[in-house]
Amino acid sequence: MRLSGLFAPIPTPFTERDTLDEAGLARNLAHWMATPLDGVVVLGSNGESVALDDDEADRAIAVSRSVVPSGRLLVAGTGRESTREAIQATRRAAAAGVDAVLVRTPSFFKPQMTTEVFVRHYTAVADASPVPVLLYNVAMFTGVNLPPDAVERLATHPNVAGIKESGGDVAQLAEFVARTPPDFAVLAGSASTFLPALAVGCSGAVLALAALVPGLCSHLRSLMQGERLEDARSLQRRLAPLGRLVGATGGVPALKAAIDLIGLTGGRPRPPLLPPPPSLVDALRVELAALGALPVRA
Amino acid sequence: MRLSGLFAPIPTPFTERDTLDEAGLARNLAHWMATPLDGVVVLGSNGESVALDDDEADRAIAVSRSVVPSGRLLVAGTGRESTREAIQATRRAAAAGVDAVLVRTPSFFKPQMTTEVFVRHYTAVADASPVPVLLYNVAMFTGVNLPPDAVERLATHPNVAGIKESGGDVAQLAEFVARTPPDFAVLAGSASTFLPALAVGCSGAVLALAALVPGLCSHLRSLMQGERLEDARSLQRRLAPLGRLVGATGGVPALKAAIDLIGLTGGRPRPPLLPPPPSLVDALRVELAALGALPVRA
Amino acid sequence: MRLSGLFAPIPTPFTERDTLDEAGLARNLAHWMATPLDGVVVLGSNGESVALDDDEADRAIAVSRSVVPSGRLLVAGTGRESTREAIQATRRAAAAGVDAVLVRTPSFFKPQMTTEVFVRHYTAVADASPVPVLLYNVAMFTGVNLPPDAVERLATHPNVAGIKESGGDVAQLAEFVARTPPDFAVLAGSASTFLPALAVGCSGAVLALAALVPGLCSHLRSLMQGERLEDARSLQRRLAPLGRLVGATGGVPALKAAIDLIGLTGGRPRPPLLPPPPSLVDALRVELAALGALPVRA
Amino acid sequence: MRLSGLFAPIPTPFTERDTLDEAGLARNLAHWMATPLDGVVVLGSNGESVALDDDEADRAIAVSRSVVPSGRLLVAGTGRESTREAIQATRRAAAAGVDAVLVRTPSFFKPQMTTEVFVRHYTAVADASPVPVLLYNVAMFTGVNLPPDAVERLATHPNVAGIKESGGDVAQLAEFVARTPPDFAVLAGSASTFLPALAVGCSGAVLALAALVPGLCSHLRSLMQGERLEDARSLQRRLAPLGRLVGATGGVPALKAAIDLIGLTGGRPRPPLLPPPPSLVDALRVELAALGALPVRA
Repeated sequence: MRLSGLFAPIPTPFTERDTLDEAGLARNLAHWMATPLDGVVVLGSNGESVALDDDEADRAIAVSRSVVPSGRLLVAGTGRESTREAIQATRRAAAAGVDAVLVRTPSFFKPQMTTEVFVRHYTAVADASPVPVLLYNVAMFTGVNLPPDAVERLATHPNVAGIKESGGDVAQLAEFVARTPPDFAVLAGSASTFLPALAVGCSGAVLALAALVPGLCSHLRSLMQGERLEDARSLQRRLAPLGRLVGATGGVPALKAAIDLIGLTGGRPRPPLLPPPPSLVDALRVELAALGALPVRA
Repeated sequence: MRLSGLFAPIPTPFTERDTLDEAGLARNLAHWMATPLDGVVVLGSNGESVALDDDEADRAIAVSRSVVPSGRLLVAGTGRESTREAIQATRRAAAAGVDAVLVRTPSFFKPQMTTEVFVRHYTAVADASPVPVLLYNVAMFTGVNLPPDAVERLATHPNVAGIKESGGDVAQLAEFVARTPPDFAVLAGSASTFLPALAVGCSGAVLALAALVPGLCSHLRSLMQGERLEDARSLQRRLAPLGRLVGATGGVPALKAAIDLIGLTGGRPRPPLLPPPPSLVDALRVELAALGALPVRA
Repeated sequence: MRLSGLFAPIPTPFTERDTLDEAGLARNLAHWMATPLDGVVVLGSNGESVALDDDEADRAIAVSRSVVPSGRLLVAGTGRESTREAIQATRRAAAAGVDAVLVRTPSFFKPQMTTEVFVRHYTAVADASPVPVLLYNVAMFTGVNLPPDAVERLATHPNVAGIKESGGDVAQLAEFVARTPPDFAVLAGSASTFLPALAVGCSGAVLALAALVPGLCSHLRSLMQGERLEDARSLQRRLAPLGRLVGATGGVPALKAAIDLIGLTGGRPRPPLLPPPPSLVDALRVELAALGALPVRA
Repeated sequence: MRLSGLFAPIPTPFTERDTLDEAGLARNLAHWMATPLDGVVVLGSNGESVALDDDEADRAIAVSRSVVPSGRLLVAGTGRESTREAIQATRRAAAAGVDAVLVRTPSFFKPQMTTEVFVRHYTAVADASPVPVLLYNVAMFTGVNLPPDAVERLATHPNVAGIKESGGDVAQLAEFVARTPPDFAVLAGSASTFLPALAVGCSGAVLALAALVPGLCSHLRSLMQGERLEDARSLQRRLAPLGRLVGATGGVPALKAAIDLIGLTGGRPRPPLLPPPPSLVDALRVELAALGALPVRA
């Protein structure tokens, strides 16, 4: 299995009573399965995985698998602070039928998060995992960086299939590409650097933006594969403002609000996260409209 | 209840098979109850709470309560990323008899962790908690800071009893003291700034160092209460090297190794954390010996 | 010569035409010489030394020396990026009669600013300087830190008399004190941590605040020398708000505005620095009034 | 004049007695004028401008102008902390015949370096400058960032011709391109992100690497202009290791050593900078050899 292509890191919708909205999740996924997305990531950062309990996580995966057909990839986030809990979560996700797991770096004890510790952690998880493992570096949330040295070493493990790098450090992305085998997937996670990430050789991306405008994101990737740089640049420039709003500026709350705006089920983030302020919702509406992503009114 | 005084943030010992070592924990606590400590914090950062599952957490609290008498304070860490899980953990700890809870800031979605979000989170937890709540700011691990504005507002809540500030920013500690009522406990968490934290008015401390040399830490506090600054400074200087080793330098792995060295049950940290290198263990031995904390050999 | 005591890092006043206001400078100094200040630092960060040319620097020193009597210490900032220019500036200042020089770390090429580089730089300057040298660590402006290792090594040089540490890292201040001989002056530079800095053994301070309320700053130091901690704490708390305004919040522009408010010659900062906004001037007025530092109106 | 193309930020060679090596500088420039470089930047960061006095700066410009023909662009760094000194340096450089000036952001008083301050500073310099002004953002050395808001505003000034951005934040580079007119030059300054910078629309680059392998750097730019992304990526990958060595890893000392290795006059950096360690020189030799940049031995 090659974990390349375009993925949406989908949010987890909640009901008014702050419980998992399984119907909403299923409806969203049915919509996304009608787009050019190559797959989805459930229970990633945008899935508020850190705010879900194990039962909710299991149900979110089960619902997702019931909607995502075998031709599309279902990836589930299973990172935990301890190696044992990461392994347990990985095994449960695999048993529920996911195609791969996305394992966020442990990060709490920052000074102790050395290359050696990362390599041991991921090696143990990959050894135990029934499905391929994607490394997951998201320093903006974890405060630690998975360095190229660790990635190079881990890429030799037969069950480590790739990495999702959420940051915008394109030089580091290029180093990941240069220091890993060609079939090791390097997936970009920042919309602001989608084009340059593809330019340095990333094999795909996991973008919140792709949950909103999957066709345009897919088109940008096609343009880059066709070396149509000028056209890709124009498209990147059109996508950048919305990418910023659901990325660094507004995060999960903004992504959920945008998903509501396009007619799917976003809903409120789980407290203590707050919904975005009205001014941000207005800005989202403007950018979605500019990209033709708002539903047609009767 | 006034949450002032000297507390040890105790580690959670594990057996060789990486399970909770209840006997070791009980034995350690029995030792600490024979020292001048005013209480202990179980399941704090040094308790590796982020690596424990709920069942382990419940058992660690139960064991602690069975050893810590009512005259000493038992505080349990119950911070979680979501408000609902923080409340659930708090209620479970209260039901198990803890005197107070220590609630680490949520932190994952860093750009969204505003004063407003912190105030809502802690207000909801304090509203729901049967026992007093201590705020817990530990930016070195969480990557977010609980700002003085938030602390000032939260200090007006009748069930928010104080704050543990783990960082070494003494100006911020002073601001916490200045902007909260006199009965609001401001507890210092960094051995390197123990003396200056007391100098600016902190009412106590939660120090890893206090698990190793509780008598000396208690003495330093007494000296400061007696305004014997010169003597306190000499003692602070003697304590600083060991404080650094079990703090910024070595963290939990070093604290556990030091606890082994003084004849208690430290044990290995839970993977992916690694035991400290031999050179660090040697340094710990030297500093513990210099402070008279090593057990007498036959 | 012992470089202990209380110093004001004085601003450099400019005329309306942005030239050095020698008369204003002389008048300010005459005022400060009638206070308990042990000396002044001319051409420090607050003196906008980075915005002065060599001729202006020479004249500012000459004016200062003409007003500051031999019983008070006149220290001049002579730090430069290159060792050769730092030596030249130091020799010129010494020839003009300063008692000591304050040499800011070189800092432009940050990754190259190692302990080895710092030790070589300061050793060369101290070897060449006719007057005692004070190290000057001001990471908030330079972006580099002079580490305790370097300070410990440099403190053995017979012509390195001490260090001014502008930051609020009290643990580092304590380490400087612990790792240098008793006659090595460790001077604190942050008003927010004035009390705790003295508590850990600093022998004095160089405080912008001392240009505004020298008597109160001197009194706080006396209280700490007398181990009257409780009283010192009350005073520190009174001084902290003004200290913040002329420190982290408002910097040189705020200090100059405050100096105008107390009836001396502050004037505008040199462009591109802008004068503080009116709201900040109002806040300064409130705090100065609260400390009794505003001139009596007729 | 369009300031696009490939530029080398040339070092300033010193003699054994640490004086300006005018002959060495002229010889180097004669070599570079026989390469595809579109121009050179003298007195930039790599030119150790912060360590030169005004006389040395003037002479370095004069020598450069005497060698660089009118068909090639000569750009001189004239940034200073104060607006008045930046204007003076700019006028002197213009009088000496440079085609444009590169003006580093003021940066010392970091908290005061707001968009408003930057806009005023650069507007005043551009108003006064007889030649076009390039903004210069080099946060790795200055510790401040020139934000897109400021750049967008300054790009409307008829005498602000472009910006050199030395950092590797490709998203910011893309924002500079998107928010400025097409004839505003956005020049990349980091070899590690040369390709992605061109991919997002930069019109050229100022690269230390271009002083060593100008032909290869020029070729990479041609490939990108021809939308030959795959080939460009291969070349970028070959260039990256050397780029890192003379960039983040080794800085000016490494660049000077590399210039010596290719048979030109690099020489020692000015103290306190130290020459690179032998291991780094060896690494430079290996990478230069791999790129065919070492001179042929007899």
